[in-house]
Amino acid sequence: MKEFDLIGNYFAKGGYVRKDVLLGIGDDAAVTKVPAGQCVVTTTDTIVEGVHFLPQTAPESIAHRAIAVNLSDLAAMGAQPAWISLSLSLPSINESWLKAFSEKIHSLSHYFSFQLIGGDTVQGPLSITVTAQGFIPDDNQITRSGAEPGDWLFVTGSLGDAGVGLDLLQNKITVSNPEHASYLKNRHWFPTPRVLAGTTLRRIATSCIDISDGLIQDLKHVISRSEVGAIVHLDKLPISEAITKNIENGIDAITYAATAGDDYELLFTVPEEQRVHIETALASYNIPVTRIGQITGATGKIDLRLNQKPFEFESRKLGFEHFS
Amino acid sequence: MKEFDLIGNYFAKGGYVRKDVLLGIGDDAAVTKVPAGQCVVTTTDTIVEGVHFLPQTAPESIAHRAIAVNLSDLAAMGAQPAWISLSLSLPSINESWLKAFSEKIHSLSHYFSFQLIGGDTVQGPLSITVTAQGFIPDDNQITRSGAEPGDWLFVTGSLGDAGVGLDLLQNKITVSNPEHASYLKNRHWFPTPRVLAGTTLRRIATSCIDISDGLIQDLKHVISRSEVGAIVHLDKLPISEAITKNIENGIDAITYAATAGDDYELLFTVPEEQRVHIETALASYNIPVTRIGQITGATGKIDLRLNQKPFEFESRKLGFEHFS
Repeated sequence: MKEFDLIGNYFAKGGYVRKDVLLGIGDDAAVTKVPAGQCVVTTTDTIVEGVHFLPQTAPESIAHRAIAVNLSDLAAMGAQPAWISLSLSLPSINESWLKAFSEKIHSLSHYFSFQLIGGDTVQGPLSITVTAQGFIPDDNQITRSGAEPGDWLFVTGSLGDAGVGLDLLQNKITVSNPEHASYLKNRHWFPTPRVLAGTTLRRIATSCIDISDGLIQDLKHVISRSEVGAIVHLDKLPISEAITKNIENGIDAITYAATAGDDYELLFTVPEEQRVHIETALASYNIPVTRIGQITGATGKIDLRLNQKPFEFESRKLGFEHFS
Repeated sequence: MKEFDLIGNYFAKGGYVRKDVLLGIGDDAAVTKVPAGQCVVTTTDTIVEGVHFLPQTAPESIAHRAIAVNLSDLAAMGAQPAWISLSLSLPSINESWLKAFSEKIHSLSHYFSFQLIGGDTVQGPLSITVTAQGFIPDDNQITRSGAEPGDWLFVTGSLGDAGVGLDLLQNKITVSNPEHASYLKNRHWFPTPRVLAGTTLRRIATSCIDISDGLIQDLKHVISRSEVGAIVHLDKLPISEAITKNIENGIDAITYAATAGDDYELLFTVPEEQRVHIETALASYNIPVTRIGQITGATGKIDLRLNQKPFEFESRKLGFEHFS
């Protein structure tokens, strides 16, 4: 493995360059400077072929997802991305694959203003580990543990698209409208990390998490860490036209929205006195946001309602399992 | 994969706890605070079964090596370790393996005063990616690019032990003395990152690199980045008694010392006016250090000498290739 050549050729040049990176790729480690009054926010996520993405997935999608899942974690804390380290395990050296993969990383670095500061390239089964570092002003982090009874429950964007997109790619379902099919697949291949929404939620949201394992599964983390409960109005879940026009059974559509993973929308809680503020702030950035329920004092309990009536999913659908 | 249970059970508790970690394992990301006047130093390395360690290697050794290779990179910059993120890819869940692995990580965290701040657990072939973050006072980093003609070339510890240890484990050679055999295998299984040596070299060494790919291979990085050349006196290389007493052919012993990888000793350059200072400083910490050569103005050239005479290795031995 000519790992050094690889890094030199594809990753060292072409990306966004930040002034706070004193030493980037090419030494034993990177040296960076955090602005005064800011904390470092760090997250690591690995995606593995056959577990987190389908075999034969395009390198552009793999690069996008590897970065997006990490930026999404930063967004859920309210942090601004700054520096990325990339470890790439490849079964063999494929130059066109590496070119497409690295160009996507560079393109994202310009879009999100992060710099690739280092990494490692090893021979092995296809998997990518990204560590993302970002900043947040001191005492501004949004955790999973601050939700209080009475807080409103919000989500950004629409839910279930990535899950329907994955089922489409696996031929488990069909969608006749080609534009809708394309939209849904792209929501799986190229999820949007809600970075701007995350920074906007600082000092407003009492808790936040990104939806990677499915709405209900991730809500469980929030209510567990916050020691509260929640009511979710399933009929209020934001569902795209691409789903409502193509998934005939309304319960199926709601099931995708409530339980499918990989949407990378933000789920957050906001006290009543901030409710109008957050709706206005996010609308001014054109970030769709929907109020889907409320935090309760019934610790550990998620009370699902459909048109005001109690509702239960088949238990096997509660909690996204990776598809392998 | 019950990845969350895994992380909760084995990694969330038992490790060293730092005051500068405001939020550790258990949220979307960790939140940490860098002391005023310090930079962040970040490195990522992945080790893969069958490439960087032999199949059936004990979990304690895998954990040790995953951490050590990263702390060694921090040491080569002169940085003090602070925070570690761990991504663990496992083919299946083996509780006794996880217990041994995580206990070793915790034990190292106490020894080196780092805190495990997050990570990811995925199903896949056995590999471990660690991202290590550390600190260095502003403008104190030691790079690969500062060596100047006339600077002395030093190495810590002894060279070649890990390479001989690996050959022993693969039955390519035999060592009759059991204590020596055990020492050599342990140098492969449990390399010592030279953290204290690294911080001692701040503002003294003009360049530094850790020896992971072999002395000559890593020296190439230094002379390339510094745009200088070097003379290396092969008869001066520090070689352990375990090697000299068991490898009969002196040239074979020197070949291990000059070309085998995975020793994780530091190779660094020091100007004449600091030479006595560094020898005294490292001796006071009981860190062995040996002067093995000198930087020259012959850019790009490594001049190998044996007993003052020019020497060349068989070319296939120059540059460590991973054993797979």
